[in-house]
Amino acid sequence: MTIDLQELVEDVHEAVRPLIGSGSVADYIPRLAAVNPDHFGISVMMTDGTQVSSGDADVEFSIQSISKVFSLALVMAGDGDEIWQRVDREPSGAAFNSLAQLEYKRGIPRNPFMNAGALVVADHLLSLTPDAEDPVLDFVRTESGNPDISIDALTAASELAHADRNSSISHLLRSFGNLINDVDAVLDRYVRQCSIAMSCTDLAAAGAFLARRGESADGRHLLSGNQTKRVNAVMLTSGFYDAAGEFAYRVGLPGKSGVGGGILAIVPDVCSICVWGPGLDSSGNSLIGMAALDELTSRTGWSIF
Amino acid sequence: MTIDLQELVEDVHEAVRPLIGSGSVADYIPRLAAVNPDHFGISVMMTDGTQVSSGDADVEFSIQSISKVFSLALVMAGDGDEIWQRVDREPSGAAFNSLAQLEYKRGIPRNPFMNAGALVVADHLLSLTPDAEDPVLDFVRTESGNPDISIDALTAASELAHADRNSSISHLLRSFGNLINDVDAVLDRYVRQCSIAMSCTDLAAAGAFLARRGESADGRHLLSGNQTKRVNAVMLTSGFYDAAGEFAYRVGLPGKSGVGGGILAIVPDVCSICVWGPGLDSSGNSLIGMAALDELTSRTGWSIF
Amino acid sequence: MTIDLQELVEDVHEAVRPLIGSGSVADYIPRLAAVNPDHFGISVMMTDGTQVSSGDADVEFSIQSISKVFSLALVMAGDGDEIWQRVDREPSGAAFNSLAQLEYKRGIPRNPFMNAGALVVADHLLSLTPDAEDPVLDFVRTESGNPDISIDALTAASELAHADRNSSISHLLRSFGNLINDVDAVLDRYVRQCSIAMSCTDLAAAGAFLARRGESADGRHLLSGNQTKRVNAVMLTSGFYDAAGEFAYRVGLPGKSGVGGGILAIVPDVCSICVWGPGLDSSGNSLIGMAALDELTSRTGWSIF
Amino acid sequence: MTIDLQELVEDVHEAVRPLIGSGSVADYIPRLAAVNPDHFGISVMMTDGTQVSSGDADVEFSIQSISKVFSLALVMAGDGDEIWQRVDREPSGAAFNSLAQLEYKRGIPRNPFMNAGALVVADHLLSLTPDAEDPVLDFVRTESGNPDISIDALTAASELAHADRNSSISHLLRSFGNLINDVDAVLDRYVRQCSIAMSCTDLAAAGAFLARRGESADGRHLLSGNQTKRVNAVMLTSGFYDAAGEFAYRVGLPGKSGVGGGILAIVPDVCSICVWGPGLDSSGNSLIGMAALDELTSRTGWSIF
Repeated sequence: MTIDLQELVEDVHEAVRPLIGSGSVADYIPRLAAVNPDHFGISVMMTDGTQVSSGDADVEFSIQSISKVFSLALVMAGDGDEIWQRVDREPSGAAFNSLAQLEYKRGIPRNPFMNAGALVVADHLLSLTPDAEDPVLDFVRTESGNPDISIDALTAASELAHADRNSSISHLLRSFGNLINDVDAVLDRYVRQCSIAMSCTDLAAAGAFLARRGESADGRHLLSGNQTKRVNAVMLTSGFYDAAGEFAYRVGLPGKSGVGGGILAIVPDVCSICVWGPGLDSSGNSLIGMAALDELTSRTGWSIF
Repeated sequence: MTIDLQELVEDVHEAVRPLIGSGSVADYIPRLAAVNPDHFGISVMMTDGTQVSSGDADVEFSIQSISKVFSLALVMAGDGDEIWQRVDREPSGAAFNSLAQLEYKRGIPRNPFMNAGALVVADHLLSLTPDAEDPVLDFVRTESGNPDISIDALTAASELAHADRNSSISHLLRSFGNLINDVDAVLDRYVRQCSIAMSCTDLAAAGAFLARRGESADGRHLLSGNQTKRVNAVMLTSGFYDAAGEFAYRVGLPGKSGVGGGILAIVPDVCSICVWGPGLDSSGNSLIGMAALDELTSRTGWSIF
Repeated sequence: MTIDLQELVEDVHEAVRPLIGSGSVADYIPRLAAVNPDHFGISVMMTDGTQVSSGDADVEFSIQSISKVFSLALVMAGDGDEIWQRVDREPSGAAFNSLAQLEYKRGIPRNPFMNAGALVVADHLLSLTPDAEDPVLDFVRTESGNPDISIDALTAASELAHADRNSSISHLLRSFGNLINDVDAVLDRYVRQCSIAMSCTDLAAAGAFLARRGESADGRHLLSGNQTKRVNAVMLTSGFYDAAGEFAYRVGLPGKSGVGGGILAIVPDVCSICVWGPGLDSSGNSLIGMAALDELTSRTGWSIF
Repeated sequence: MTIDLQELVEDVHEAVRPLIGSGSVADYIPRLAAVNPDHFGISVMMTDGTQVSSGDADVEFSIQSISKVFSLALVMAGDGDEIWQRVDREPSGAAFNSLAQLEYKRGIPRNPFMNAGALVVADHLLSLTPDAEDPVLDFVRTESGNPDISIDALTAASELAHADRNSSISHLLRSFGNLINDVDAVLDRYVRQCSIAMSCTDLAAAGAFLARRGESADGRHLLSGNQTKRVNAVMLTSGFYDAAGEFAYRVGLPGKSGVGGGILAIVPDVCSICVWGPGLDSSGNSLIGMAALDELTSRTGWSIF
């Protein structure tokens, strides 16, 4: 089985090789714009702990919005269903950083994976862990078993210097009473979690609890089986900005993408998958990453549908 | 196994009994408003053909939007992926009959289960089967094995008399060139498919091909396995109006609801389920039906996540 | 004075001559698209009955939305303020044929000069004058003293054949209970009033009651002084689609434009002005017409501000 | 004439007396909510310098959005038409503090009297007068001849403590590159100008340059005649939030209201008028102030239409 899996990821790698370098690298901050577009990495971690990888699976990249899955899991682990008083879980049908919808919904974000929702989650997590410096960083270090994972300070500084849109969203949330802590403190936490640099290998490992019904790397249950299903459901309906339906249609797995070009996908009870390629498609998802997942699921039949 | 299943649906029936009569019966047309609210039915058809039911599973009701699943399947069976040139497959984040979004998207409906999308599908099906009278009716008769299923003429007449909103949508589609046939002809077909009267037993049987990877009652493949997954994916992301995320979160199955109070849900490779209760929740989905599916999936662990 | 006025309109004509043929002729219906773009006409009718003109002031063109001023005046003359129960009088901030706003406002158009509002006014006028064939036509014949004014049948037919957007609006109005008569009957009336063909000379004369505090050509008061001010106010805030503010800023007069390239403007207590040139600017108003009014008001100081 | 005018304002005062105390005092900040609702003042300044007043015309109140007229005039006086590269001059059709429209228009506010537009004007004025402390305050002191006018520090502090919505708008403007200076510096200036406390007498005098074709109190031309007409035009189309059409229809004058309950209205070449009453109508304009202007214009025939 291990050998077959290794072949599988190498075959997928081979199949998508022509797409390496395709798409547009995110350019809203200089640090991301400077990334070499010619990368591709893939790593699959099975629920039994087996892990196979191919390509640049050990090269670090900025996890960006993938961090929203971890912050949501931490908030649910720490405070159960409370967060759903403050955030809905419906797909948005709007851009990830839309203010119009947030205004119309009077400060209740449509889901925890839009920026507005993730800022509320960050605010909630800050209230739960006021003394922690970076709980999301601590979590991914523990789950991946890699204590060297760190926040890319240049990315964080670059993000903070271009944070006007997120500042705008945060103040709007606050005007509706749905941001409790100081805007600067929440933004600082949020920017730091987005600026964590990880590899495919680390990310597949860190996300594997979602394939293991909520079981952490140390065997504890971070989330109950039921909670885990629910995080997966939210990933499926809302994990890909305005292309969630497209991803469900083409790939058929819960997943979450980031503008750094990474995608984390979950096959419940089977494995977690991380693919990475910096070039994005028009929806802001990794072009080669989407193709690789399409290829992988076609070859394996992995799909929840 | 058959015995256990029978107990299961009876236990679910018992568990939701206190909710019988709860919610608000659809009242936008007199024929629907006149339905007795105190009904509840459930029927489950396994992929091996076993079928178990409880409550008013043999009482007919208006299938309404559930018909959109069948018309989509017929269009995909007849013309492959062509329909996706005319309709997107993203959740809408808007009301089922919204014109604003359709205007903004220049006549491309967000998904085939909003009224706008279903009207485009009906138009496409009319072009594919110009000489058929009611291809959706023919289909559900064949799949359920019940040749007596018919269109409720009073419902159809009532719908046509209150069709201004759908007329408005149709003309808007036409102004963008995304409705080919005559508006009246399309509306007639659409209203007729929505006015089909079926029971839970019939609907579970008619939808079972979606649990059987596209295999029809007669053993042919109406849809390929891949196509079937995709219809299921669209049901999951867009099958419940503005409560798709909520349904995915609570129930975790592909499904489609109708304002007649029916819900069709699919457990891929396991079974199709139909529940019915006329009282609707604030999102327009059967209140007791949602609760019954919640109960059923909790007891069985059936979930795609 | 007569001599000076004649010089004035000729000087304006000379000043805008370089713009003849600029802009884009409306092309949504073939009949309008076929108009020779190289026309320019101007006519000014003083409140004392003096009239001066220059250029193609006697060439007929399609008055289109300018007709909305006459139908509004007729409805107010016939039924006082009743129409304001059905239509607001706020500038829209949206395109003239927007459905989104109408949906959001639950069927109450923002003002009587958007298509939705004009359709409600046409519906109201139809209820007031069920037996008249074309009350707007009758009115402009009487006011201009030209009994030969007629409806261009080819334009009307062309409009009807491309009426899907207006059909969509009408059915949406009807779904909200804000269209009483049959959609086809209202659309027929509306299309006919828009298809009236008139010259600058006729239009300046027909609109002069708005400069005469509501006094008709025959000396009767069609509208009271107060009502007339109010029609002028609505023209100022809403008469130029999404360029009402621009027109108020540049020209400073109440006015109403049509996609046929005509503009009717009012200097209260002084005169009515009609300019015409088929080429439209990006907002759908006559490019040369706007320039001519700018020139005319700069030379005369005519402005309400 | 002076005697007649005095009678006029007293008659108007008498006529609206039953409305004293009606409406809802603005309550979004404690300082405004604490205002005694039972005030009414009116003051009219003729272009010849005659001034008549009645009621609480010398009681100070918070001028709030009326300050936007002065900042716009100062920016146009200092930098001509440059501001129109950054702000449109169309009525908005949306709430005064809407973010949706600003997002859709990619950071270009619809007009200078919405909060977003006024913030851009404040930013522009800050760039023009980086060393001035409060140029709007200096201006109203000079024009009214009252050097004791000051900023109410409690109101300013209260506004700053509830500035999340305006912070959100400012950061959104900045994300589109349409706010040059530091957000905090712009907000500080903006909040200070809105917190100026003035009486009807002072405000009528300070706004009289708009009735005098731009001529300042000291006889200089702050604005050209043409520029003055244009400011008046923008006041007419956009000075009353979402009730500009209603005000044009009922009153027929350029004007600007503030949530402190003041309204400044202009009769070009005749007079400037200030009315005040703290109770607001559902559109956020002074209820008694609107009625007083209605009464005043009915009695005098003052209207631009």
